[in-house]
Amino acid sequence: MERLDPDKLSVEFRTGVTSEEPVIGRKYTLTHSDETGELYLTIGLDYAVDQISWMRDEVLAEWVPHEETPFLQVYVYVDGANDSFVSEIRDKIFRRELPLALEAIRYGDRYFFEVHPKLDQAPIWIYFGSKDPDYNSFEYWGTPADYA
Amino acid sequence: MERLDPDKLSVEFRTGVTSEEPVIGRKYTLTHSDETGELYLTIGLDYAVDQISWMRDEVLAEWVPHEETPFLQVYVYVDGANDSFVSEIRDKIFRRELPLALEAIRYGDRYFFEVHPKLDQAPIWIYFGSKDPDYNSFEYWGTPADYA
Repeated sequence: MERLDPDKLSVEFRTGVTSEEPVIGRKYTLTHSDETGELYLTIGLDYAVDQISWMRDEVLAEWVPHEETPFLQVYVYVDGANDSFVSEIRDKIFRRELPLALEAIRYGDRYFFEVHPKLDQAPIWIYFGSKDPDYNSFEYWGTPADYA
Repeated sequence: MERLDPDKLSVEFRTGVTSEEPVIGRKYTLTHSDETGELYLTIGLDYAVDQISWMRDEVLAEWVPHEETPFLQVYVYVDGANDSFVSEIRDKIFRRELPLALEAIRYGDRYFFEVHPKLDQAPIWIYFGSKDPDYNSFEYWGTPADYA
């Protein structure tokens, strides 16, 4: 697995979010540049729709309340161009890049995990969103600690 | 201007939003099918990122607090394919389709405007989001009453 280069990660905290709070409502928008390999993480109360490109190759994540401990729900948009071959390729690329994306979120928001150590053990659920049932899925991908 | 055909508009209210509440935090995601001309309006506390296609031709809107009366902030993503010609075309298409989109939001959420008649006079500000300064702009587009 490709490892995160912290020098290539930029993090932006938007209005209403600090490095510590809130948990519920905290949303991550992770985008990247194919050219430079730079990663851009925006942490806010909303997804950074201004950062989501026409490629829709961003990774979105948010903390969702669940019994005693919230879980981290991650969302990727698998479809493209109404074409199942494109969905197949995008599905493969997301699966290859998601470990790095999770590492970027875990590292980019590391002070938050220091303040909320329980959340390092929270489940990560990834929703691969597709109209094609072959690619539409909801999967357990470990915990943030696995990507620390 | 093309007029809204109410039979071609589907409206979905998501968790946390009713036809009356809330004002602040209420978000609209409007998408469409080029093939059928159907419009899909999702009203929720978040943008419906699952409804935003790789084309990024959706219209997003939300109520933003401002002094005595909130305003409706609308957002469209002008860029595509890192190409200023594509941005020029997309900008033109959005400008052509926005009156219909605003009519769809106003009609789709009509009970909300009945309960909050002041909001029919609220300003609508449209943010055309682009990295190209020629297309990046923030413009006043009247009030919801203009699209009723």
